[in-house]
Amino acid sequence: MTDKILLAHGSGGTLSRDIVNNSLISVLGNSILNILDDSAVFTANGKIAFTTDSHVVQPIFFPGGDIGKLSVCGTINDLSVMGATPLYLSLALIIEEGFPTKDLDTIIDSVRKAADEAGVKIVTGDTKVVNRGNADKIFINTAGIGIIPEELSVSGHNAKPGNKVILSGTIGDHGIAVLSKREGIAFDTELESDCAPLNKLVADMMLVSSKINCMRDPTRGGLATTLNEIAEQSGVSIRIDEEKIPVRREVAAACEMLGFDPLYIANEGKLVAVVEAEDAEAILMQMKKNKYGHNAAIIGTIEEKYAGRVVMKTTLGTSRIVGMLVGEPLPRIC
Amino acid sequence: MTDKILLAHGSGGTLSRDIVNNSLISVLGNSILNILDDSAVFTANGKIAFTTDSHVVQPIFFPGGDIGKLSVCGTINDLSVMGATPLYLSLALIIEEGFPTKDLDTIIDSVRKAADEAGVKIVTGDTKVVNRGNADKIFINTAGIGIIPEELSVSGHNAKPGNKVILSGTIGDHGIAVLSKREGIAFDTELESDCAPLNKLVADMMLVSSKINCMRDPTRGGLATTLNEIAEQSGVSIRIDEEKIPVRREVAAACEMLGFDPLYIANEGKLVAVVEAEDAEAILMQMKKNKYGHNAAIIGTIEEKYAGRVVMKTTLGTSRIVGMLVGEPLPRIC
Repeated sequence: MTDKILLAHGSGGTLSRDIVNNSLISVLGNSILNILDDSAVFTANGKIAFTTDSHVVQPIFFPGGDIGKLSVCGTINDLSVMGATPLYLSLALIIEEGFPTKDLDTIIDSVRKAADEAGVKIVTGDTKVVNRGNADKIFINTAGIGIIPEELSVSGHNAKPGNKVILSGTIGDHGIAVLSKREGIAFDTELESDCAPLNKLVADMMLVSSKINCMRDPTRGGLATTLNEIAEQSGVSIRIDEEKIPVRREVAAACEMLGFDPLYIANEGKLVAVVEAEDAEAILMQMKKNKYGHNAAIIGTIEEKYAGRVVMKTTLGTSRIVGMLVGEPLPRIC
Repeated sequence: MTDKILLAHGSGGTLSRDIVNNSLISVLGNSILNILDDSAVFTANGKIAFTTDSHVVQPIFFPGGDIGKLSVCGTINDLSVMGATPLYLSLALIIEEGFPTKDLDTIIDSVRKAADEAGVKIVTGDTKVVNRGNADKIFINTAGIGIIPEELSVSGHNAKPGNKVILSGTIGDHGIAVLSKREGIAFDTELESDCAPLNKLVADMMLVSSKINCMRDPTRGGLATTLNEIAEQSGVSIRIDEEKIPVRREVAAACEMLGFDPLYIANEGKLVAVVEAEDAEAILMQMKKNKYGHNAAIIGTIEEKYAGRVVMKTTLGTSRIVGMLVGEPLPRIC
């Protein structure tokens, strides 16, 4: 391989074959991917979850992860919050001409590690190269397929009055970690992105309860936007308690300094679950045993009044309406 | 909607909701997509084909199609050549800030038309917006899922000596049509891209024969590269006859003028099939009845000698080795 990616690596010809063999198959290879037909082929039966996300994060390397890890975790989490067991991922790269081959290798290694941790396989892919200046370094799309147990119905439409809202941990870590790297902001202690695959956390939760009505991962738009989506889709209101929402000291400080609200900052390793009240404590206890759920907390309750709204009791004791994100304070955060 | 795409359309917040509702759901909506959970959910059973392609074609509008039509057809064709019935597609957009909203609407309308023609549904998606100058207008990734009949085994590894090679029509139309638009080359008659969904052509072929061993769509790298892949994967040689390969007069003239070989030019609505000799004529006749197979021809035979090689009998009566594409004469052709 050359030390920089060339246009010809996206030609479909001999250099495309080289990049596929040397940088992709050699690291990600498995019995399905290695066939290299025009589609991957596997057997699956039942309720299938299917999702896609493109990742354009800038910078591509950030504390706690990189665009490779993010691309795998993002899609795994979108499957997991549907109650699906993620099985197979596609990986499609758009690379800017001149991109360092060693950076590509680092990213593909991160893809492999995240996929291995989650127990998913990369089974199909695509590589395009565009002329210098026509993309910013590398963009990665993953699509994913998972299987949902037949009896399960987890959806943003299923939140019901009386249900409890559980958040799996601290908010804002990903957004502030990426921003700190991008803007060169230093903290006393290094803040890392929470980027992580949540499928095993979800599996743990489902072990102790079948009464999980809704899950979602609060990525772009943050916790506030995710809760608003659920409130809107389910036609309910959500009352949350600011005091209960875990926020790291560094994230709170950075938000204070920069004028951001952690409720709107992206997370990449967190989920919100709306569960029947009777099982809430048992689910919470189980989540706390998982490394991605140590700081989980019950942060609120589903209510009937003010359908479509999210209302927060602030630390000062007042109540305020928490809307969806408006505008775009942090472009290219994922 | 504003008349240009803003960074906030990719924020995950209110403007993301607007673009999803106004530009995507309103055109592409169906009972699966409209749920808007983190994954699409549907039931499927058996052998599943799964594929992905990102599209970065430049220019995004070209004679015979645009990046929207191309994105749908490309993935449908990758499923179809596995013998799969394409069912569900994802659609992930990376848009440059400032992109005209009306161009997006035109592209999404093309997505809808191509999906409708093929009978597939867009069931999940993603929209990212990057700052001006960080991408070139719009890139589109589609991933797709199809179902393969249990008894079917179509693969690039299955070509056998004695099999016949069928090409579904003229080569080079897509590549030269895009190039002519890009470079402002005028022809006497307008040459159009062959961009088309081939699933119904494949269904027609499978109606008359179960003896289709291998199919592939010769996109990037052209017919020559595709045949080399098959020769390599199956450990056979392929002997083709130049005289039998259909090439439009305009494509031949443009290639002559520009120094290209049509064997290496991308197609987006063509397939190569390797079939048992006894069924070759019946399959060919059936293909000719389909609008995307009018110019189909038997162009060669699978042989044992010189495994891994493609050998062409030229119009002059000599033989030459036809290798894979080397280098990249036409970047961003799809």
